[in-house]
Amino acid sequence: MDQLSNGETLRVKASDPGFYEDVKAWATMSGSTLLHLERITGGIIEAVIAKNSVQPVSDSPIHDPASTMVVFSGDLDKAIASLIIANGAAASGRKVTMFFTFWGLNVIRKHQMQPVSKTMIGRMFDMMLPRGSKKLGMSKMNMFGVGPKIIRGLMKNNNVPSLEELIESVVAQGAELVACQMSMNLMGIQREELIDQVTIGGVGYYLGEASQANHNLFV
Amino acid sequence: MDQLSNGETLRVKASDPGFYEDVKAWATMSGSTLLHLERITGGIIEAVIAKNSVQPVSDSPIHDPASTMVVFSGDLDKAIASLIIANGAAASGRKVTMFFTFWGLNVIRKHQMQPVSKTMIGRMFDMMLPRGSKKLGMSKMNMFGVGPKIIRGLMKNNNVPSLEELIESVVAQGAELVACQMSMNLMGIQREELIDQVTIGGVGYYLGEASQANHNLFV
Amino acid sequence: MDQLSNGETLRVKASDPGFYEDVKAWATMSGSTLLHLERITGGIIEAVIAKNSVQPVSDSPIHDPASTMVVFSGDLDKAIASLIIANGAAASGRKVTMFFTFWGLNVIRKHQMQPVSKTMIGRMFDMMLPRGSKKLGMSKMNMFGVGPKIIRGLMKNNNVPSLEELIESVVAQGAELVACQMSMNLMGIQREELIDQVTIGGVGYYLGEASQANHNLFV
Repeated sequence: MDQLSNGETLRVKASDPGFYEDVKAWATMSGSTLLHLERITGGIIEAVIAKNSVQPVSDSPIHDPASTMVVFSGDLDKAIASLIIANGAAASGRKVTMFFTFWGLNVIRKHQMQPVSKTMIGRMFDMMLPRGSKKLGMSKMNMFGVGPKIIRGLMKNNNVPSLEELIESVVAQGAELVACQMSMNLMGIQREELIDQVTIGGVGYYLGEASQANHNLFV
Repeated sequence: MDQLSNGETLRVKASDPGFYEDVKAWATMSGSTLLHLERITGGIIEAVIAKNSVQPVSDSPIHDPASTMVVFSGDLDKAIASLIIANGAAASGRKVTMFFTFWGLNVIRKHQMQPVSKTMIGRMFDMMLPRGSKKLGMSKMNMFGVGPKIIRGLMKNNNVPSLEELIESVVAQGAELVACQMSMNLMGIQREELIDQVTIGGVGYYLGEASQANHNLFV
Repeated sequence: MDQLSNGETLRVKASDPGFYEDVKAWATMSGSTLLHLERITGGIIEAVIAKNSVQPVSDSPIHDPASTMVVFSGDLDKAIASLIIANGAAASGRKVTMFFTFWGLNVIRKHQMQPVSKTMIGRMFDMMLPRGSKKLGMSKMNMFGVGPKIIRGLMKNNNVPSLEELIESVVAQGAELVACQMSMNLMGIQREELIDQVTIGGVGYYLGEASQANHNLFV
């Protein structure tokens, strides 16, 4: 759509039933006009979209909507959900800040052990907690590690990006991943042990971002 | 109150201690004036409310406040909490969108098995996951299914609507229940297996609704 | 900073890596100017801040930002996270409302048994649920009560206030703690059993506060 000139139209067909509502939502958000939307035979949905020559003045008082998420959980399923939402939000032009705290730090740990000197407590957490996104368990139906394998397999079969790809793409779209300083201190986790895309900040930083956002989740 | 003419007053007595704060909040939200609020003998609270002849101009910049919820959890207690909040929000005039994803899909499954052809994975999830709101377990104190029976009994004794009634009433109040397309695909759940009041949408649809809302929860 | 006259500057040094981002965020939120920010030797960060002689007109349309939290969980780790966020929000001038519901009521129960007459159900919950913040378990790594001891020890060693101190300080900063009337009824919990700083309200009261807030979490 970015390549489309003003006034030009775009015809799209899709077989995904969710497309029907999604294209309406997308048109509203992007200020485009949905000229035509129809369920045609065989479950196919056809949409014709026009890029508006003049951006409609939004009657929403919230400029530059932004999203923040506190990722407290270290469960694979919740991490996937939060990153799918974050990718969608970034794709629709929102500023996205993800604040990883407590067990959520496990999502952004490097997979390899790092040569850092750790306190005894740090070594204990290191031993007991999953090192990185590939080791995360599920909040339900973990089944001693079979659950995560099933979910990852299903995502692959359905062409859903993996958790690791979702992290890459949300960063590529400009989202900010922030590791909670206090949680790092408590658990004896050091900067080198976290993936490079992460910055470090406190709850004050998170709240500063949240004060600009209307969409704030705790996961 | 809708039947009340401008300037008319309404006298209310209640024995519920929560009424004291609730009536203040309600008056603020509805633009009514609380002329009198007093704790009288025997734990009774008396309020006198006047419908304003002129709606006060709100100094809040957020017009038409809306609420969205991502219902990720399939736990009975969290489902009840989310639907009580959703009913309250709809009752106070908010547009409410509930987006059921991952385990949350169990809340909106039909109770009866449906004659749909399923993949092997779909059959596996079908077997392992609770089919519908009446089969949900608790996040705590599930006690092999005794916990849900206790909570449901307590709700009945306290005249709190059941989870199934809460779903009916929130839909009757205009809330929108959206099933996450991607989760349905992953788990092999088909449209026919979900209650009729549900529409299907993607994360894009959810985010479109959230961009109009100041109150967004992840449950 | 409140004591600082307009135009005066303040020089701060800190060894906490999170300070780098936090001071930027704080300056933005408070309308101060960050004249200088530098990482100097030994991991020390130096900042020079000027209080502005004229408060910049905020281009954010959200006046008087407020925060609400539904504290549904009774887990120690989630309670700590919610109260750290609440303290930060209150410290930055936000109105904060915490709505304790379901298992979250355990966070605000008094530690001592109270001489109230209870129904059989009330006695049952009393027996099975942790009485007060000091008895809370963890959502992960509870290890039969060893986990909470470790976390509390770590917080002490890192000069993080305890959960009980966080509750005291958030109230001292003007935050409002609200106990959910309906949950109290269901669980047979009475006013006398909750800490004195708490008020009682319904979901209507919570939603009234949320309608003024842009930052609303469900924990």
